[in-house]
Amino acid sequence: MTDDDRRDEQIRATDFRAVFRRHAGGVAVVTAIGPDGPRGFTATSVVSVSVEPPYFAFSVNASSSSRAVIEAADSVVVNLLAAGQADVAARFAAPAQDRFAGIATETLPGGDVVLTGAVGWVQGRIEQRIDIAGSLLVVVRVLHAMLGPQAFPLIYVDHAYHRLTEDTRIG
Amino acid sequence: MTDDDRRDEQIRATDFRAVFRRHAGGVAVVTAIGPDGPRGFTATSVVSVSVEPPYFAFSVNASSSSRAVIEAADSVVVNLLAAGQADVAARFAAPAQDRFAGIATETLPGGDVVLTGAVGWVQGRIEQRIDIAGSLLVVVRVLHAMLGPQAFPLIYVDHAYHRLTEDTRIG
Repeated sequence: MTDDDRRDEQIRATDFRAVFRRHAGGVAVVTAIGPDGPRGFTATSVVSVSVEPPYFAFSVNASSSSRAVIEAADSVVVNLLAAGQADVAARFAAPAQDRFAGIATETLPGGDVVLTGAVGWVQGRIEQRIDIAGSLLVVVRVLHAMLGPQAFPLIYVDHAYHRLTEDTRIG
Repeated sequence: MTDDDRRDEQIRATDFRAVFRRHAGGVAVVTAIGPDGPRGFTATSVVSVSVEPPYFAFSVNASSSSRAVIEAADSVVVNLLAAGQADVAARFAAPAQDRFAGIATETLPGGDVVLTGAVGWVQGRIEQRIDIAGSLLVVVRVLHAMLGPQAFPLIYVDHAYHRLTEDTRIG
């Protein structure tokens, strides 16, 4: 790579970051069991891939401290946060020592951990980890899915959390 | 697969669909050039994967009429829609004959098509198409990214479009 190539690459990364800052995402906490117990992190990169059979995917940035957890885990839970759970989202995005302290959870038969109060959760087996320039695109085969309390979801965009309501609906 | 397995699979698909209906997504229109000219479809499955170098991904369901377009395309544009573009989102999600009729667009030097008024767009080269039970997870290397007018994004959740505003911000 020449210096020119490197500069072009940095401009592309800067432009890309600026545009994707405006891309809204529903907020989830992904949990997995590590060697020292449950771990979790906030993610806005969860997408449905296939419905029948059900698969979803999410990405983990190369620089994320959660990358090693996902690299080692067999299964994960994606907890879709409710509009009232911005504090939970912030907790699982912060460099806390114990992110689960004071957080209400339930443990599934296989050991996976679900956060109480999410609008729904999906648990599944990691089937593919696609390495893309050091970041991971993780493909998960769904084993269980459960609705939580009826609520609008929590949204993240441009470094801020937002809540949807009946009044934000269009049409 | 036994009848029991098949029934379990259907229950899983139903539960998964119910949970993911509550997963909010920023709304994008993905455009690509087909043999008969520009094609496009509404997607709520766009995620950032890597920033440096910049990559994003999106999924296309097995049953989508857009799957064949993406299968054949070399490059795509992801247009991140503004809160005021619900009509554009609906147009590119409907089984219209010509979804581009009456839609303001610009054509990039290589031929790719950008929708006017989006909060930003990203253009790139398709590098991987991962087949997951007939659906596609598409990995795109970013070549260009551009900001549009400053606006809140359009959100889709539970079969409805929503708009964020200053008042929906938490904290």
